[in-house]
Order: sequence, then structure tokens, then C-alpha cells
Amino acid sequence: MFRPEIKVVDCTIRDGGLMNNWQFEKPMVKEVFDNLAKAGVDYIELGYRADKKLFSPKEFGPWRFCDEEDLREVAYECDSKISVMLDVGRTDYEAFLPASESLVKLFRVATYVKDVDKAIHLADHVKQMGYEVAVNIMAVSHALEPDLDEALEQLAGADIDIVYLVDSFGYLYSEQIDYLSEKYLSALKGKQVGIHCHNNQQLAFANTIQCLIKGINYLDGSVYGIGRAAGNCPLELLMGFLKNPKFDIRPVFDLIQTYFEDLKKDLRWGYETPYTITGILNKHPRAAMAFMKGVHGDTFSEFYDELLNVEDV
Amino acid sequence: MFRPEIKVVDCTIRDGGLMNNWQFEKPMVKEVFDNLAKAGVDYIELGYRADKKLFSPKEFGPWRFCDEEDLREVAYECDSKISVMLDVGRTDYEAFLPASESLVKLFRVATYVKDVDKAIHLADHVKQMGYEVAVNIMAVSHALEPDLDEALEQLAGADIDIVYLVDSFGYLYSEQIDYLSEKYLSALKGKQVGIHCHNNQQLAFANTIQCLIKGINYLDGSVYGIGRAAGNCPLELLMGFLKNPKFDIRPVFDLIQTYFEDLKKDLRWGYETPYTITGILNKHPRAAMAFMKGVHGDTFSEFYDELLNVEDV
Repeated sequence: MFRPEIKVVDCTIRDGGLMNNWQFEKPMVKEVFDNLAKAGVDYIELGYRADKKLFSPKEFGPWRFCDEEDLREVAYECDSKISVMLDVGRTDYEAFLPASESLVKLFRVATYVKDVDKAIHLADHVKQMGYEVAVNIMAVSHALEPDLDEALEQLAGADIDIVYLVDSFGYLYSEQIDYLSEKYLSALKGKQVGIHCHNNQQLAFANTIQCLIKGINYLDGSVYGIGRAAGNCPLELLMGFLKNPKFDIRPVFDLIQTYFEDLKKDLRWGYETPYTITGILNKHPRAAMAFMKGVHGDTFSEFYDELLNVEDV
Repeated sequence: MFRPEIKVVDCTIRDGGLMNNWQFEKPMVKEVFDNLAKAGVDYIELGYRADKKLFSPKEFGPWRFCDEEDLREVAYECDSKISVMLDVGRTDYEAFLPASESLVKLFRVATYVKDVDKAIHLADHVKQMGYEVAVNIMAVSHALEPDLDEALEQLAGADIDIVYLVDSFGYLYSEQIDYLSEKYLSALKGKQVGIHCHNNQQLAFANTIQCLIKGINYLDGSVYGIGRAAGNCPLELLMGFLKNPKFDIRPVFDLIQTYFEDLKKDLRWGYETPYTITGILNKHPRAAMAFMKGVHGDTFSEFYDELLNVEDV
């Protein structure tokens, strides 16, 4: 599958950091950046820029904040653009240099449907400073259809480059992905649409290529699928599918072998039954992450029954 | 997704046995059978019936042979039917009781396209003894289209109940699955069609439900995805998708917790990079299985390059 508009967006450090409070060592992050640049990845997302009044640098590693000086220690100007994520309500509006002075090229604003006005406000602020900007609507499998339609209409009218379909809970099957892809593409004509999947039901890669077939161009992946809970679409699978000769899969294999096989044993993202259960039941993975740490019932079946009987909050 | 014709076929012991020479202990196999029966699985495949003149019972566990007396120690008549697989060229024609005296209900004949005449001959033999019979065309991603078309035409005219589409190498993407599903369904009108996927690219579950959507009714899965190399479609994901109330996912979760989480650490099926590489490159997993045991080059990238440069034999 080849279209010149296709962009691969790696979120290894950003989404992976949700599993270790962004405590990745700088030499490792530098090697990740180097190898992803060699692999031809279009965007490399190195973390969040969280408000230090809300999150303590004592508790979180540098990729929770992505200060420019930290970024410059691990990354550099090259064909791969640097991306950083912003959370609505957790961002200091003063924390941005003008784009011409920053290593960052793209900021992605993560929001729930209900906060889309705040997301557009933050996106406007960043856009006016000269950056590319995306808005990622999280947890779309919990959104009410009229609310989602209204949010997409607002985003269609805003000065935003990319809008993301995000399956935060790893719940969506291909037919739902088809339906939502068509909805986003039709509501957002003239903008780019992206897809970010979680892998609770081993559907992240399949759903990503399904979106690609439908016409979505911005494709998120991460090395060895690292990310919160079940993780994301494995970048190496995406690269194996995309036949554009600008991509080289070998530097991704090298990263897996050097770092990510061992990291996975330690952090335990991926196909683990508690994550499967929250995915099947369309629930936030936080209960599964607690179960993995020994909280909650003793057996998978008890955990399943417990979640079946819990109302969403 | 509900159709009364849908049948779930578990191949935990049969395909899983390819990873440990079928050395599963009888109490474990009995518990697997019990739990799968409770889960509402339609067919439970307990192994192969290989010719003892070709394979030594000293080297292989009982599920390589599935003698009736071994089956009776772990299984019994119930709503779940017992299935056993036969390999063309490795089967003793004298090794079958009449169906009325056997616990087995279904024999599945595994064949390559080139051996379909032999497969039909063996299938006829088994069918005449009163069994249900399937023919599984392995490695379809290596088949030449005219050869496959001819094989399907022959199978369409034979006295066979089910014909399987098998992605032995875990290579096929959804568009290829769509194409092949349509081909099988259209060539085999009046027969049932089945799907058996391998999970090298994390597409086994996605491709299985894609086949289901296309009209294929016999769906293979295995507990926690156990099977050769990257393994199969995880049964628990399939059960989470199928909404027929006759299925209960809990006994499958119980098996994962009691046996299969630990077994996976030992046998290492699933998402491992050497299997990903053979999947992407449409190769038999034997090279990846050798790599996993320390044979072949040192790095994943070297292994990838080695396979890129090897002609198929």
C-alpha cells in the first residue's frame, strides 16, 4: 500500500512512558531516536509537555515534560519530525517557545469529546506559535454519537492540521473501525485524519491497516508495540506492510533486540489477559493495570465478573 | 455476530503439540477438554493420528497418535465433538475403528495443494467409515492460483464436509483474506468452509473475524493462541467476539491462568520477532524456530537479510 500522504508516527517513548513514568534513560532515548530516524519514521513523539505545577519532576522522568534542553540531548533536526503530546487541562500555556526556536514540529492535543472546546483553544494557541497541530479524541468507544458528531463539526471548522481517531480501550472491531473512519473522513474534509489503536484484542495492527485502506494517512505505531497496558500497533508490523522504499525495518528490529524484549518482561505491556478482559468489555485499562499489580480478585474469571457488574463512572 | 451455522474448533492440543512433541500430561489434557466443553466449543481437536511406523511413540507424546484408549482417558461423549488431524502420507489406513465405535467425530486431513488427490483418497476412506471429514489446504500463500483453483474444483466434487483455508505462515492481510474467502465460498457451494490462521503478524484473530463476516462458518482457535511458532487465533478473543449465549469465556480464562501462562514462558509461541520476520516474508516458520533455539545469525536484522536472500525450496 503506497500513498505519498501516508505518515508513520512513532509514539514509543510517549505512550511507553505511561508504563514507567517516563523513566527512560537519555542514552536509550537517543538510540531510539537515531534508529527511528534511520528507519524513515515521519514523526517521532518523545513524550508529553505536562505542567510542572501539576506533576513533579521528582516523580516523573524528563519525557513527561519534554523541556527543549532535554530534547536537544537526544534528538536533532532531520527528516523525522519531533512530536510532543499535550493533555487538555494539564498544560502550561507559557511552556512554548516560538516554533522557529524549538526542535518540536508537531504538538498533539489529547482530549475527551466533552473537552473539545478546551482542546481547540489549546490547539489554537500552539498553532499561532507556528507549530503543526493535531487533536486526538480519546476513548471514542465511550462517546455518544451526537456528541462526537458535534465535536467533529467543531474541529472541521478549527485551524487544526490532523484529527485522530483513538481506540483507547482496544475495543473496536473492524466493522466499527470502518464506520468511524468513514465518519471522520467525511466530517473532516480538507484535514488529515490519524489512527491510534490499543492492542487489547490483538487488533491494533489490523485496525490500523483497515484505516489506511479507508483513506486515513497518519498511522501511529510503537517499537514492539510498547504503550499503556496492551500497548499500541507494533511499528515493525506497520513497516512490514508499507512498501514505500523510504522505510527500513532493520533499525526497528535492532531496537527490539537491544532494549525492548527485556523491557517487555519488566513492564509487561502486550497480550496479557487482564488487558484482554478490559478490551472485550470496553473498559479503561486502569482496573487491569491494578490487577496486574496484584490488586483486585484472584482469578481472571473473578476479574471478568467484577468488571461485568461495574457501572462506568 | 450470530449465525447458527458458526462452529468454533479448538486446536490447543493438536497445534500446541507442534511445540512440545505432544508431551502434554493426561490430567492436563483432561482439564483442557473439560473446560472447553464447559465453554461450549463445538469441536475439540486432541492431536494427530500419525502412523507409528513413521513416528516413534518413544519420541512423541500420545497426542501424536490419538489412540482410542488414550482419548478415552481424557475425553468423553458430550456436546463438544472430538476432532483428530491426519497428515497426507503419514497416516495408516488401518488405524480407524468404524465411527460408531470411536470417540472421534471429525477427522481433518492436512494437505498441500499438490497432494490434494491423496487427501481426497484418505478423506474418502475416513468418510466411508462414518466420520465427518474436512480437508485443510495448508500454506495457501505459496500456492499457484491455477493449482489452487483446480484443487478447489476437485474438492467441490468430493464427499467432504468442510474445506479449510489455512494461512500456515501468518502472511495474509485482510484484502488477501477477503479475496481467498470469496474464492473458497464460491468454489465450494454446498460445503462448509473453515479458517485456520497463524499469528505471526498479529492478524490471526482479525482475519478470522473477517472470514466470519464473509460467510465462513468453521473458525479455529486455541487457548491463549498456543500453536506452532507464533501460534493461532486466541480462542478467548473469538469467544469475546461471538455473542451466542451458548459460549462461556470463563473456563478459557481459567485454563490460561492454570496452565497456559506458564507454558508460554516455556514453549515461547506467540509474538516473537523471528516469527514476525518469517510472517512478513511469507516463509515457513522452521527457520524462525531454529533461530529461537540459537541456530542462524546473531541478530534479527541478520536473520531478516538471510531470509530475504534465500530462495524457497
